Amino acid sequence: MKPSLKIAIAGLGTVGSGVVKALVARQTLLAAQAGRKLEISAVSARDPKKKREFVAGEWIADPLALASGDADIVVELIGGEEGVARKLVEAALENGKHVVTANKALLAKHGKRLAELAEKKNLQLKFEAAVAGGIPIVSTLREALIAHGVDAVKGILNGTCNYILTEMEVTGRGFAEVLKEAQAKGYAEADPGLDIGGGDTAHKLALLSSLAFGIAPDLAHMKVEGIEHITAADIGFASEFGFRIKLLGVARQTETGIDQSVHPAMVRARTPLANVDGAANGVVVDAAAAGSFFFSGRGAGEAPTASAVVSDIVEIARGSFGPVFGRPAASLKSLTPADPGAVRSAYYLRFEVLDVPGVLAEIAGHLSQAGVSIESMIQRGRAPLESVAIVMITHEATRQAVEGALKAIAASDKVKARPCMIPMEAA
Amino acid sequence: MKPSLKIAIAGLGTVGSGVVKALVARQTLLAAQAGRKLEISAVSARDPKKKREFVAGEWIADPLALASGDADIVVELIGGEEGVARKLVEAALENGKHVVTANKALLAKHGKRLAELAEKKNLQLKFEAAVAGGIPIVSTLREALIAHGVDAVKGILNGTCNYILTEMEVTGRGFAEVLKEAQAKGYAEADPGLDIGGGDTAHKLALLSSLAFGIAPDLAHMKVEGIEHITAADIGFASEFGFRIKLLGVARQTETGIDQSVHPAMVRARTPLANVDGAANGVVVDAAAAGSFFFSGRGAGEAPTASAVVSDIVEIARGSFGPVFGRPAASLKSLTPADPGAVRSAYYLRFEVLDVPGVLAEIAGHLSQAGVSIESMIQRGRAPLESVAIVMITHEATRQAVEGALKAIAASDKVKARPCMIPMEAA
Repeated sequence: MKPSLKIAIAGLGTVGSGVVKALVARQTLLAAQAGRKLEISAVSARDPKKKREFVAGEWIADPLALASGDADIVVELIGGEEGVARKLVEAALENGKHVVTANKALLAKHGKRLAELAEKKNLQLKFEAAVAGGIPIVSTLREALIAHGVDAVKGILNGTCNYILTEMEVTGRGFAEVLKEAQAKGYAEADPGLDIGGGDTAHKLALLSSLAFGIAPDLAHMKVEGIEHITAADIGFASEFGFRIKLLGVARQTETGIDQSVHPAMVRARTPLANVDGAANGVVVDAAAAGSFFFSGRGAGEAPTASAVVSDIVEIARGSFGPVFGRPAASLKSLTPADPGAVRSAYYLRFEVLDVPGVLAEIAGHLSQAGVSIESMIQRGRAPLESVAIVMITHEATRQAVEGALKAIAASDKVKARPCMIPMEAA
Repeated sequence: MKPSLKIAIAGLGTVGSGVVKALVARQTLLAAQAGRKLEISAVSARDPKKKREFVAGEWIADPLALASGDADIVVELIGGEEGVARKLVEAALENGKHVVTANKALLAKHGKRLAELAEKKNLQLKFEAAVAGGIPIVSTLREALIAHGVDAVKGILNGTCNYILTEMEVTGRGFAEVLKEAQAKGYAEADPGLDIGGGDTAHKLALLSSLAFGIAPDLAHMKVEGIEHITAADIGFASEFGFRIKLLGVARQTETGIDQSVHPAMVRARTPLANVDGAANGVVVDAAAAGSFFFSGRGAGEAPTASAVVSDIVEIARGSFGPVFGRPAASLKSLTPADPGAVRSAYYLRFEVLDVPGVLAEIAGHLSQAGVSIESMIQRGRAPLESVAIVMITHEATRQAVEGALKAIAASDKVKARPCMIPMEAA
C-alpha cells in the first residue's frame, strides 16, 4: 500500500466536524477504497475550547500555517471569497499541496486564477462540496456528461430559500413570518441576505456554468434576484395555474451567448424541479442528444456536505487527475453574454390595482404596445374600492419588452404597488 | 501533451456507433478535457458492409484480435455473459489493456474475477454504461457517496418495462397489446424475455448492489420477477390507492443480511421514482446520514449510453485510478442474504373470485391465520355470478406469511385465478 495521505483541515464548523467524523469513524473502509490510509495530520479552527465529538490531528492556531505543514491535502472550510480562506488556498497550492474546498464564493470570484495555479503545479483543486452538498453535480458535469455537451443547467441550489418557499406554500403564511421561524429553527442564518437575496445561488451557478460551458466562472454577467418580494398570494396564484414558485439558478447556451440568471421562477407542477421540497436541492442538466438528467438530494448540512469533501479526498488519494473545471484553466473562455433582447420567456405578472373602471384596459394596452400578449388571466374581486389583484400569464416575450410595459404600468395612479414579474420555466 | 490514447472498439451497434460519432465529432474538445488525443485505432463488428455515418480506425474482422493490437483501451460493446465478449475482455486485460464495457450480464456473472484480473495488472475496467445509460450512478456509488455508506439502492433500471407500464397506464390497454406495439416501434426487442422477465434489471442491480455494499456481484441470491402478469386492472387499482406500478430493482442492507430483489412494486404517487415515465430510468440511493439521493434520465439509446462510455474513456485518459467495484476486488465479500422471514413489507393483493357468499370471509380468514392484517380494501361488483375482483392492501408482513396465505386461498374453489401480490414501496 502507498504511504498514508496527510490531510490538514481548516475550519471545524458543521461541515469540518462532519469530515473529521467520517474520516475517523470509517477509516478502515475509506483506506480500502482510497488505496491508502487517510490521516488527519492537522486541524485549525476559531475556537480551540469548543467541545468536539471527534478529535484528530495536531491543533494549529493559525490556519495559514497549514499551508506550510507536512500535509498532502489542505481542506479549506473557512469560507468567504477573500481573507484567510483565499490566502490559505493560494499558499497551499504555492507550497505544492492539493486543495479540497467547499468555498463557492472564492471559486466563483477567483476560480480561473486558482485553477491555473493548481494546474501549473500539477495539483488538484476539488470542490464537489461547494455546490448542492451530497449531489455529485460537479463531477457529473466535469466527467460524466462531456460526450455531448450541455445546453442548459437549472437548479434549486439554496436549501434555505427552498425551505422558506415550501413553508409559505404549505402554511399559507407570508415571507417575513416564515423567515423568522426558519431563523429560530436554524434553517436560516441570522444574516440571511446571501441566501434569500440569491447571492449564494449565484456563486454556485457560476461554478456549474463554468463546468457546463467551458468558461471562466463569471458573476458579472448574471442577473440575480432573490425571494424577498414573493408573497403568499403569488404562491397561491401559481398553484391555481398549475405551477410552483422556486428560486432557480439557470445557465443556458443561446444563439447569441450564455444566459445566466438567478430568479424566482414558476415551475410546472409535475416536473422534477417542482417536486424538490423543503431544504433539498435539485439540478436538471439538459445534455443535448443524451437528453435531460435530474439529480436531487440534501444540499447542505453536516453529512451530505462532508460526504462530498470526503469523496474529493478519496479521489485525490487514488491519484485521479484532470483539470479543475474540466478543461485546462488557461483555455477557459470568457463568457459572451446572451443578447437580453433575444432571450424569450413567458411571464407571470401580478398587479395590485384600484378597483376602478378602465384599469384592466390600461394594463392590457401597455402590454399590447410592448408586443406582450396574454395567455391567461385571473382577476379576484375584493370589497369595492379596495385594491384588487390582477394576475396574468403572458405568451413568450423578451424580458426587455415586459419590463418596458411594467414600467409604464407602474406609473399609473390606478396601480398601487410595484408589479410583480416572475418568469415561467417549462421544466 | 501526453501521447494519444489508442482505442479499439468491438461492436458497432447503436451504442458503438454513438461512441465513434462522439469521439470523432468532438475530438478537439475531448482532447482538451482528457489531456491527450483520443484516437480510434481499430474497430470490429459483425457486418463489415453496413453503411455507417462515422468511420474511424482500422477494420478488424476478428474482434478477439483487438486484444492483441496496439490499443491502450478495448471498448467491449458486443454483449452477452459468455462467448466472444468474455473472451475479449479477458484477453484484453491479460494483454495489459484497459477495458470499458457496457456489458452488465458479463460483469454480474464474472465481475469479481475480472476485477481481480484488472487490479492485478494495474488496469482499469470501467462500466458506467452498463447501468442506467447516461445517469452516472456507477461512479456516484463508487466515488461520491462513500463517506457514509449506503442503506439501500432502488431503481427503475429497464426502459422497456417502464415504457410498457407507462403506456398501459396512459392507454388503459393490456400488457400483451402494449408489448406488441412497443416491439413494432422498436422500444422492445423481438425476444423481450430478458427485459420483461426482469433479468436485465437483475444484472444491473447486481452491479449497483456490489458497489453499494462491497460485495461480489451476486445473481444467485436475488428474487427476480417480471411484469408479464401485471394487468390493466392492477394499474387502475394502484391509481385508486394513490400508487403507480413500476418494475424495481431493490438492494437493501437489513439486520440479517442483504435483501436483493427485482419485482413490480406499488410506488407512492408523489415520490420521485413514481414520476419516472416512459423509457427513462431512475435510481434512489439511501445514503445513511447523508440522506436520500435521486437520479433520473435516459437509461438507454445511442447518445446517453455512448456518453457513459466516453466518460469512462476520458477518465482512463486522465490517469484516474481506483478499484473496479470501489474496493479492492480481493476484498469484496460474499453476499450474506437477508433472512426471508425477517424482511417485511406491505402488499397489494388482488383476487379474482366467484361472487358467492362467504368468499371474502374465506380470504380474510386465511390472511388472519397467517398473521397478515388488512389496511384497506376495494371490492368491485360485476354481473351476478361473474368473477369479481377483491383488492386489498395489507399492513406490513413477511413475504413468507403472505405467500403462505395466498397458497391456501388459491386452493379454494371460489377463487378463479392465481392471486396477484405486489409489494408496496414507500419511496
